[in-house]
Amino acid sequence: MFKKILIANRGEIALRIIRTCREMGISTVAIYSTADKESLHVKFADEAVCIGPPPSKDSYLNMKAIISAAEITNADAIHPGFGFLSENAEFSQICAEYNIKFIGASADMINKMGDKASAKDTMKKAGVPTIPGSEGLLSSVEEGKKIAKKIKYPVILKATAGGGGRGMRIVKEEGGFQKAWDDARQESKAAFGNDGMYLEKYIEDPRHVEIQIVGDSRGKACHLSERDCSIQRRHQKLTEETPCPAKVMNDKLRKKMGEAAIKGAEAIKYEGAGTVEFLLDKHGDFYFMEMNTRIQVEHPITEEVTDFDLIKEQIKVAAGIKISGKNYFPQLHAIECRINAEDPAKDFRPSPGKITHLHMPGGHGVRVDSHVYAGYTIPPNYDSMIAKLIVSAQTREEAVVRMKRALSEFVIEGVKTTIPFHIKLMDDEIYKSGQFTTSFMETFDLTDL
Amino acid sequence: MFKKILIANRGEIALRIIRTCREMGISTVAIYSTADKESLHVKFADEAVCIGPPPSKDSYLNMKAIISAAEITNADAIHPGFGFLSENAEFSQICAEYNIKFIGASADMINKMGDKASAKDTMKKAGVPTIPGSEGLLSSVEEGKKIAKKIKYPVILKATAGGGGRGMRIVKEEGGFQKAWDDARQESKAAFGNDGMYLEKYIEDPRHVEIQIVGDSRGKACHLSERDCSIQRRHQKLTEETPCPAKVMNDKLRKKMGEAAIKGAEAIKYEGAGTVEFLLDKHGDFYFMEMNTRIQVEHPITEEVTDFDLIKEQIKVAAGIKISGKNYFPQLHAIECRINAEDPAKDFRPSPGKITHLHMPGGHGVRVDSHVYAGYTIPPNYDSMIAKLIVSAQTREEAVVRMKRALSEFVIEGVKTTIPFHIKLMDDEIYKSGQFTTSFMETFDLTDL
Repeated sequence: MFKKILIANRGEIALRIIRTCREMGISTVAIYSTADKESLHVKFADEAVCIGPPPSKDSYLNMKAIISAAEITNADAIHPGFGFLSENAEFSQICAEYNIKFIGASADMINKMGDKASAKDTMKKAGVPTIPGSEGLLSSVEEGKKIAKKIKYPVILKATAGGGGRGMRIVKEEGGFQKAWDDARQESKAAFGNDGMYLEKYIEDPRHVEIQIVGDSRGKACHLSERDCSIQRRHQKLTEETPCPAKVMNDKLRKKMGEAAIKGAEAIKYEGAGTVEFLLDKHGDFYFMEMNTRIQVEHPITEEVTDFDLIKEQIKVAAGIKISGKNYFPQLHAIECRINAEDPAKDFRPSPGKITHLHMPGGHGVRVDSHVYAGYTIPPNYDSMIAKLIVSAQTREEAVVRMKRALSEFVIEGVKTTIPFHIKLMDDEIYKSGQFTTSFMETFDLTDL
Repeated sequence: MFKKILIANRGEIALRIIRTCREMGISTVAIYSTADKESLHVKFADEAVCIGPPPSKDSYLNMKAIISAAEITNADAIHPGFGFLSENAEFSQICAEYNIKFIGASADMINKMGDKASAKDTMKKAGVPTIPGSEGLLSSVEEGKKIAKKIKYPVILKATAGGGGRGMRIVKEEGGFQKAWDDARQESKAAFGNDGMYLEKYIEDPRHVEIQIVGDSRGKACHLSERDCSIQRRHQKLTEETPCPAKVMNDKLRKKMGEAAIKGAEAIKYEGAGTVEFLLDKHGDFYFMEMNTRIQVEHPITEEVTDFDLIKEQIKVAAGIKISGKNYFPQLHAIECRINAEDPAKDFRPSPGKITHLHMPGGHGVRVDSHVYAGYTIPPNYDSMIAKLIVSAQTREEAVVRMKRALSEFVIEGVKTTIPFHIKLMDDEIYKSGQFTTSFMETFDLTDL
């Protein structure tokens, strides 16, 4: 087992990793930028090394400084957390060259899963369901119609050079194909000077459902069931839960999705903790979106319903310990709310500054992961997450009221936070019913917060 | 279901009950003495009524003021917590007369279990193992020897008027009986003017192991397994855990003890949450000590390993909801440390005063129940418990290291606390082995704290 781990991250996740290391009897080295010297992750680590000033490129993305910090402190492994260098193939490679174990994926694996098109291709070959569509660009409107007929309407035409919704058209039936094709090409030509088009099946009202997997050095993987992360705003997850409350979800589908994720992971001999993200439609069909080769922000909800410490599992497999191969199913219902220093009434505008008063909730079924304290100043330089509030209960209904109770106890003064948004969410009828999709936030009223 | 519950208690347990009421959609009324007006239980309740000044007899034991508070706030039930009026038959009776549901045992039940001798008798008749011994006073040394032979040595001779160990003698074999008899009688005569003696089997190296039960209005009971509370100092529990780590404990013994507790509870048609306390010896034999007709301080460890909210269960059965009758076995290992404002290096002397700085631990498997905050002044008038720190993990070994990690994160400045004692305990080899008895604290070194 490792003797000393350097944590190449900051804030909440750095503290989270330190906690597990301490429980495992592993020494820790924190790194910090000059803006973070008052963070708890610095105070709670056994050693701490300043690796530069903000912004990130001069500190938490400064590979040279981080490798030096590991060298001078004699760390035998680096845990990258999430974000920053956690999915940076070059950094993973450098760690390997310096004989420092990178607690994450290999450079090759990161590259394989980092390129979305090749990741989809790899998964398709492994037998993981992917969104059907054209292989590359369409040569004609006729070819498009033929493929659409085969994969069934609705489909979506996408400009290869497109972005931000431009050059995109949803086609509901063959009668509308020609007009959509003409409009999309014209729009794409005008916007990007390129009218190349491809086609995919359009997934109506999807949910974002991801499977937590752990693979070991033998290439053997297991799953720890799913997380539903459909409540997103501009692709930023706001709250997550497990199990997925969709009507179509049951142990049979859970098993099927879990097996698909394992198939994908084992096909590439994936080592470490990872997440296979799927779109789940209302018919119970699911399609590979992407694979994250790191720990996720929302990993604690899986921990609460399976009782596994996922950081510990990461460290164990990185140290060569083999997994049992058993899969795990949720025993409880867990919800996480990301508490950000943002003003939800003002378009979630960041609200850095000094926390003048702080009281965190407690009691049965309540977990708080946070690096802040009363008197701490949230720097403006990094992401605005200041705490994760996680609750677990025997049923979803109980988890929702427990979350509302815990949110109502949470006192953070001096900065604006997303707590009022989450309280309103817990009272929302659609949210309470569990029957929401990834477009839920588009119609959620934020004006009265 | 009740609409409004008055909580006839203070501090941590009052807040604990408020949390559950809030999750159940039940309004709450806090009561408080003038010394407690800054406590969180007052701030977090929907309503709060001052019921007098300290000491307790003028406030938390002032039945008249409490009943008045319930009347003027229109509360339809009273939850007494633990201590204070929780096992007061008169108060239970008064609530019944005022048509306010007392969330606890009936006056009759409290009386039955409050008198130790009659409680033992009731349990013996129900078939619950009790410590064998003489029926009442011994008429002669010969009778004593005859009984001792029957129940097997070692036995203990006790003066009926005794106390504080005086007039007590442990007898290991028949050869020493006469001398012990003479010495004990003489000592008792001198100390109390009474030489009446009775005899019991002496339980060597016992553990304190208690069974959590819940009974409903039909008289049906279930158990939620055991808690080991052997780490005590002068009969005050310091830390508790579940499951019991004794070598003799296994699912067969757990089931046997659970069934004995249910037998006792059903014999008296016990309604509500209760605890049947046993002495467990190294051979796996166990003996009824007493039954507590209230929620226990250490109830959270049972909640953590069974996922039940025991306060919710109390409220449900008080409202007439029937239990399923299923018994529950621990799925995890949980430990509670009582964090008291006391100086463990100075004979656990109370250390009231203002908390100048506070940081509570968090993360996976950590629960904190507390009514204090930074800036709060712990009054000198009541018991010194300021927080319960509870951890849970897949194994006892992991729970012990998690507790040590959580204790090391806990920062309370301004007053002395028992945290240093608990940290030392988590490092103790005997404690870590799990093979301790109720005399563990007698030899624990407190001089270097």
